[in-house]
Amino acid sequence: MQTTRRGFLGAAAASTIALSTPARLAALAQARQSAEAGRLFRDDILTPALLLDLDAFEANVQEMASFLRSHQRGFRPHGKSHKCPEVGKALAKAGALGHCAAKLSEAEVFAAHGLGGLLVTTAVIGKAKIGRAVKLAAARQDTIFSVDHAENVRDLNAAAAAHGGRRPLRLNLAVDLLIGRTGIEMGQPALELAQLIDALPNVRLAGLQAYDGGASHTTGFEQRKARSTESMSRAAETRRLIERSGIECPLLSGGSTGTYNIDVEVDGVTELQPGSFVFMDLDYNRIGGQDGPVYDDFRSALTVLTTVVSHRPGVAIVDGGFKAFSTDRPFTPRATDPALAEVPYAWGGDEHGRLDLSAAEREVKLGDRIEFLVPHCDPSVNLYDAMYCLRGDRVEAVWRIAARGMSQ
Amino acid sequence: MQTTRRGFLGAAAASTIALSTPARLAALAQARQSAEAGRLFRDDILTPALLLDLDAFEANVQEMASFLRSHQRGFRPHGKSHKCPEVGKALAKAGALGHCAAKLSEAEVFAAHGLGGLLVTTAVIGKAKIGRAVKLAAARQDTIFSVDHAENVRDLNAAAAAHGGRRPLRLNLAVDLLIGRTGIEMGQPALELAQLIDALPNVRLAGLQAYDGGASHTTGFEQRKARSTESMSRAAETRRLIERSGIECPLLSGGSTGTYNIDVEVDGVTELQPGSFVFMDLDYNRIGGQDGPVYDDFRSALTVLTTVVSHRPGVAIVDGGFKAFSTDRPFTPRATDPALAEVPYAWGGDEHGRLDLSAAEREVKLGDRIEFLVPHCDPSVNLYDAMYCLRGDRVEAVWRIAARGMSQ
Repeated sequence: MQTTRRGFLGAAAASTIALSTPARLAALAQARQSAEAGRLFRDDILTPALLLDLDAFEANVQEMASFLRSHQRGFRPHGKSHKCPEVGKALAKAGALGHCAAKLSEAEVFAAHGLGGLLVTTAVIGKAKIGRAVKLAAARQDTIFSVDHAENVRDLNAAAAAHGGRRPLRLNLAVDLLIGRTGIEMGQPALELAQLIDALPNVRLAGLQAYDGGASHTTGFEQRKARSTESMSRAAETRRLIERSGIECPLLSGGSTGTYNIDVEVDGVTELQPGSFVFMDLDYNRIGGQDGPVYDDFRSALTVLTTVVSHRPGVAIVDGGFKAFSTDRPFTPRATDPALAEVPYAWGGDEHGRLDLSAAEREVKLGDRIEFLVPHCDPSVNLYDAMYCLRGDRVEAVWRIAARGMSQ
Repeated sequence: MQTTRRGFLGAAAASTIALSTPARLAALAQARQSAEAGRLFRDDILTPALLLDLDAFEANVQEMASFLRSHQRGFRPHGKSHKCPEVGKALAKAGALGHCAAKLSEAEVFAAHGLGGLLVTTAVIGKAKIGRAVKLAAARQDTIFSVDHAENVRDLNAAAAAHGGRRPLRLNLAVDLLIGRTGIEMGQPALELAQLIDALPNVRLAGLQAYDGGASHTTGFEQRKARSTESMSRAAETRRLIERSGIECPLLSGGSTGTYNIDVEVDGVTELQPGSFVFMDLDYNRIGGQDGPVYDDFRSALTVLTTVVSHRPGVAIVDGGFKAFSTDRPFTPRATDPALAEVPYAWGGDEHGRLDLSAAEREVKLGDRIEFLVPHCDPSVNLYDAMYCLRGDRVEAVWRIAARGMSQ
């Protein structure tokens, strides 16, 4: 009876596969209801699907929040990793003072779902986007935008003036750390841009935006520490340079999951913006921890559930490929089942993965469901409309990834 | 005046960036209206965005349709590439007899948008999905499902019986070509599975599903021809084996954009299922054509539009990274602007790309908009909710990628 009931309700609830977007939303609402009623289980979920282990996720959130609290640093986690308002709400509840967003459109989604303290970490360029930024700031006055170019600062100032805003737009000066990607050169060029912001009436310096994407994934703790310490120390020095010139520069925001316990040691860093720690991924596991070859400060909370859809002696084909996992480096998903941990997953194209079963320590059959840790969490999450949140084998919630695809 | 009007309407229309899914749909509807009224232009589109060059797209559709017509082969293009009902409708208008879908959920979306002649090219495994397959077949009786395992055939037969279907489910036997991914071994094992299908009352053999994903991307026309000819000839032989046993096997469906002009030469191949030709991508360009080192039988119709969001001497950073392009091979987007064709694009993470301007033949400034051909079209399309369809610089339509994310 129990099985039949689960099967029936599961089939209905698992129908987040749907015919159109309104139908998709309706099906999602239905799945949510079943989950909230305790009637949806791991085995009911149609594959491929994105799963979140709530125990691991909650432990990660608490771990980072209490670490930063004990080091007296602000906690503004990066929403580009999760793109999910419910994850943001859990972070706010744990003490996050706000949320970073990689792009304006991501921040707009967060704002619409009630998240505040938004910091857009990349520059907002072009008339249409600047107009929207000003609108967002009018609705959420604590929103901060990042700039690295005088022309963009002037454009933002002009747009804020045209909008008749009574409060100036808050701007973080993005500084170029060792990565050499975005950001203005530290020292004198940064100071001059800070002076420009200070001189214009409709913008105001909030602080520095200092993210070294190269430091976050430097392999080996000591090497990573050397790199990030140099990056963040130079940012802190630029902050002091600006403050000595008489311009307030309250924030120095930066850091990552890879460097959180390094950056808190740098004087002048006021807040951290790690993202991936909520989920973790194989890419971060590989960078090495403070005490060993595997970085495991945070638990693996995110998996992709697949099904064996074709089978022959020695080989199983699962239904997850490039459309189910994002990978940009030469390593691959790994099964969570210890009996399959040594089974290599080989890409089988957009729709499939291939498992060589010679290293399997259990039988694998057609229809078996196999879960994999993801190589790179951020762009993998960006492939899915929702994540299934599990407590053991029970789906406790279904969270919409509302900012999926919001890269504008 | 003209500029002002364009700017105003553009800003409104370009707001497919939106706060929630219903808002996203409303914004999309608004963008569509502006496009249909001729008021939306390339310069109005917020970036990163997916663009379709309609002249190139339409030429590609006509080229493939007339080629297959002249070779008297059926045309059942693969929808996994486009995931877009409007693209499917254009193909149907050009003479496509139906549409392939990689997964059940993709086929459900196509059916909901009025596309018929559906062929699901991978196996439908598990009770919940099989139940949905039977429902889809009841609504669209010409739908074909692919099988490669006796257990799955029996499950489908039982589900069809339970549904009380008066017509048997149509099944394509997926055969394992040289790729060794999915599909049953050709020859005797395939014959035995055909005999099982023939013996069961609620399923019926429609034909063979024969896709060699390895052949499609074999570099060098002669090598590709040898490989695909061997694959498809063996499939044709298996079809004859089944027919000689007294079982009708009307279809032999397979082929790809890479092998379309090879597979039509194989006796017994009844229809082709190419997908990427509607868009083309750099990956296909590289496999080599019949007459030269570049495969250019079809025009490059698909691009990603980006904006330069950070700039320093010699380097420009654009706002498209791993969330704007999917790449699973070590090559990269290429700018469509001839003056930038030699500029290498280096991955700058999830959100950015880096352009080394030393090879640029024109100045590149902050805010410049640069368009790139994509490395791999299918999973790149799967990142976007909509594509902007251009006739020159005018956006003629905005098409929703309704089956985006439908990998189940």
